[in-house]
Amino acid sequence: MNGDLLGIKELGREDILHILDTASGFKDVLARDIKKVPTLRGKTMVNLFFEPSTRTRMSFELAGKRLSMDVINVSIPTSSVVKGETLLDTIHTMEAYGADIVVIRHGSSGVPHLLAENVDASLINAGDGFNEHPTQALLDLFTIRQHKGSLEGLEVAIVGDIAHSRVARSNVYAMGKLGMNVRLIGPPTLIPAGIETLPGVRVFHRIEEGLAGADVVMQLRLQHERQKGGFFPSVSEFAKLYILNSKRLALTGKDSMVMHPGPINRGVEISSAVADGGRSVILEQVNNGVAVRMAVLFLLSAGQSGES
Amino acid sequence: MNGDLLGIKELGREDILHILDTASGFKDVLARDIKKVPTLRGKTMVNLFFEPSTRTRMSFELAGKRLSMDVINVSIPTSSVVKGETLLDTIHTMEAYGADIVVIRHGSSGVPHLLAENVDASLINAGDGFNEHPTQALLDLFTIRQHKGSLEGLEVAIVGDIAHSRVARSNVYAMGKLGMNVRLIGPPTLIPAGIETLPGVRVFHRIEEGLAGADVVMQLRLQHERQKGGFFPSVSEFAKLYILNSKRLALTGKDSMVMHPGPINRGVEISSAVADGGRSVILEQVNNGVAVRMAVLFLLSAGQSGES
Amino acid sequence: MNGDLLGIKELGREDILHILDTASGFKDVLARDIKKVPTLRGKTMVNLFFEPSTRTRMSFELAGKRLSMDVINVSIPTSSVVKGETLLDTIHTMEAYGADIVVIRHGSSGVPHLLAENVDASLINAGDGFNEHPTQALLDLFTIRQHKGSLEGLEVAIVGDIAHSRVARSNVYAMGKLGMNVRLIGPPTLIPAGIETLPGVRVFHRIEEGLAGADVVMQLRLQHERQKGGFFPSVSEFAKLYILNSKRLALTGKDSMVMHPGPINRGVEISSAVADGGRSVILEQVNNGVAVRMAVLFLLSAGQSGES
Repeated sequence: MNGDLLGIKELGREDILHILDTASGFKDVLARDIKKVPTLRGKTMVNLFFEPSTRTRMSFELAGKRLSMDVINVSIPTSSVVKGETLLDTIHTMEAYGADIVVIRHGSSGVPHLLAENVDASLINAGDGFNEHPTQALLDLFTIRQHKGSLEGLEVAIVGDIAHSRVARSNVYAMGKLGMNVRLIGPPTLIPAGIETLPGVRVFHRIEEGLAGADVVMQLRLQHERQKGGFFPSVSEFAKLYILNSKRLALTGKDSMVMHPGPINRGVEISSAVADGGRSVILEQVNNGVAVRMAVLFLLSAGQSGES
Repeated sequence: MNGDLLGIKELGREDILHILDTASGFKDVLARDIKKVPTLRGKTMVNLFFEPSTRTRMSFELAGKRLSMDVINVSIPTSSVVKGETLLDTIHTMEAYGADIVVIRHGSSGVPHLLAENVDASLINAGDGFNEHPTQALLDLFTIRQHKGSLEGLEVAIVGDIAHSRVARSNVYAMGKLGMNVRLIGPPTLIPAGIETLPGVRVFHRIEEGLAGADVVMQLRLQHERQKGGFFPSVSEFAKLYILNSKRLALTGKDSMVMHPGPINRGVEISSAVADGGRSVILEQVNNGVAVRMAVLFLLSAGQSGES
Repeated sequence: MNGDLLGIKELGREDILHILDTASGFKDVLARDIKKVPTLRGKTMVNLFFEPSTRTRMSFELAGKRLSMDVINVSIPTSSVVKGETLLDTIHTMEAYGADIVVIRHGSSGVPHLLAENVDASLINAGDGFNEHPTQALLDLFTIRQHKGSLEGLEVAIVGDIAHSRVARSNVYAMGKLGMNVRLIGPPTLIPAGIETLPGVRVFHRIEEGLAGADVVMQLRLQHERQKGGFFPSVSEFAKLYILNSKRLALTGKDSMVMHPGPINRGVEISSAVADGGRSVILEQVNNGVAVRMAVLFLLSAGQSGES
């Protein structure tokens, strides 16, 4: 990592594996009775969220606090920041306050990249529009590796609204770099045109076809408001076609892991039997997210001072 | 306490007294120049509030920070959580983040109890619907004991909207267990039917009758919105009948303590002369709340590791 | 300082200089790799904001955390506090929680002064109505002294909506006490009547006249909503008359500093060329704000225990 974590696209295979290895060490810290290390005492993290978020904000806040950072939360409705130059002023202000790391979520794709060119503080992309959500992909990979031992050659099915999912996009990039094979499963209206040209990617419209042989099934969250956009006829129709239930999970023919970035819509993307079943690692993903974000914070901070 | 603090109903007499004794120790800490101890360093508390709250949230946040905990505030409008199973997913997520203690306030009675059956993290009920608000009752008892020396046999008058008050309910339970006598005073529409069958409880509709001989007078906050529900004709009418003023306070015939859970409506539940007078312990209640909550956090944490 | 920082009006020349000198020491701390000192560990600061604020709240929060204070943020819409006595109850409650310092912002002038008479906790005025914003003036002076070496005799132009600016008011008071000369520049509707009778103050309506010889040009933020009040015909008309652009900046005939309390409206109060140019110290102001607020917190805390 080069001072920022803007997207998986910007990372190399070795970068990704280095983050995962570092996260393993922090996972051990989180298993202790006192889940805290003084590593980044005196460093400041600002959570700058232009979109509402409880889960990602909490995960970063916990990661920072467990590294003994000072954490400041700032929630700004996008409506109050209208011009790009104003946004740049905002980030320069955060930097002037002495923020070492700014975690940024924004509704427009590319905002963290635009800002990173102009600031010295380290930026972490916590989700930008329909583009990327790199720490989610990293925690997904961490969780898969924990269960499967290695990543190369694994078959991963990602199911649902691919087009509007920054989680899917970051995972597609990451899995391609790590030699994994990805099946993207969803209705034609929710699969980006041309995405099958990316390395390792195949597209399926019927979930029954896409699941055969999958080592991992990752269901995406359905944003109900997409229905108004006409991308699918109704939530219940979508659920009928793409929900992961026990019968469909059996189609993989393997001891497949079941993943979801959360929060889950039970009965829409996933049946309760599967969500609460023995193959579900959904809560492990949440838990691993803190360790992975600690690793990212640690590596970026080490990069700032020129040594670790 | 058995890993959670769900309500006074679940506690025994000895549990209550043990919490009060522990709080005494923490009250000494709060009197120091440096009001902080490293006791729970590395432990995480999540304040999960489904109803807006400034005071209770602040009191728990301060209690946690003074024990050196990492404290995360999460405020979720109830409207965004519609189904019980989703609420359970929310609490499992908090647990997956590594929360040791979750302080929960929710508009529906029984929510903390439902959740506690399904999670390992310790839950503290910070108010559930019209059911209980156990830490408020504990801080009330602590404050009374501080002034009166002992609790058994004391006569306590609780005045106002008993029916919608979780503060009243928790106090009725607690005072019954400790051998105190409670007079509930309010209009018939605001007294729950049958409550006079609980141990030590008598009901009065005229404040003048109920106050005679009371060692403690606890006025409840009147939620103005209850007027719309038709529970009383108008706020000014209610005030005329139930306000505690100097003349009425004299009716106790004793050096009675005056209490209120706050925030007070001056001129509605309590006159300014009484609120600011020498018998009012309202601000002491606020102050003791931090010590009592530190005690609860400490005892639950000690229970988690199997020893204190 | 006498336990509170209510306004510049209440400070003497020596008080101001003592704060600036103390801030210099803290600025050195902020330049370190670990920007944190244990000075106020165990002390509690409450940020009590009755008006929304991101920047000032963040600056105080950072200042407190870097002194190792416990910081609690409380945001209360003014609409929910209607009566003075209720506001007093709120501040007494903060005090009962054990707050050592309460930072208060309120939409009504004089609120911090009213409260200070009645509480023991130290109060810091973080902006009261159209009255004062003393820490902003202190950070402005700190920034000017840093660049100019000394303050006495400097010529400062303050441009824009003087009438509604607590920043302007605090600076006028401060600069008068320090022997600086202030030109207030704005349309007659936005200059308070009689202000030219204050020591060192002159009034100009044309920016071209007021800038000649200015060592410092401080542009104020234009609140767009003032247009509705009829104070000026339109934002673009205002911008045409009072924006600071390179051509106008050249009129000072000096190597003038350019200041703004932020957030800036580019193209309204200041052109981008000037805001981003070599004479702008706008981001230094932000940075110095943390050091100055650390100094204020430190000095008030030292005052509380009777020694430093």
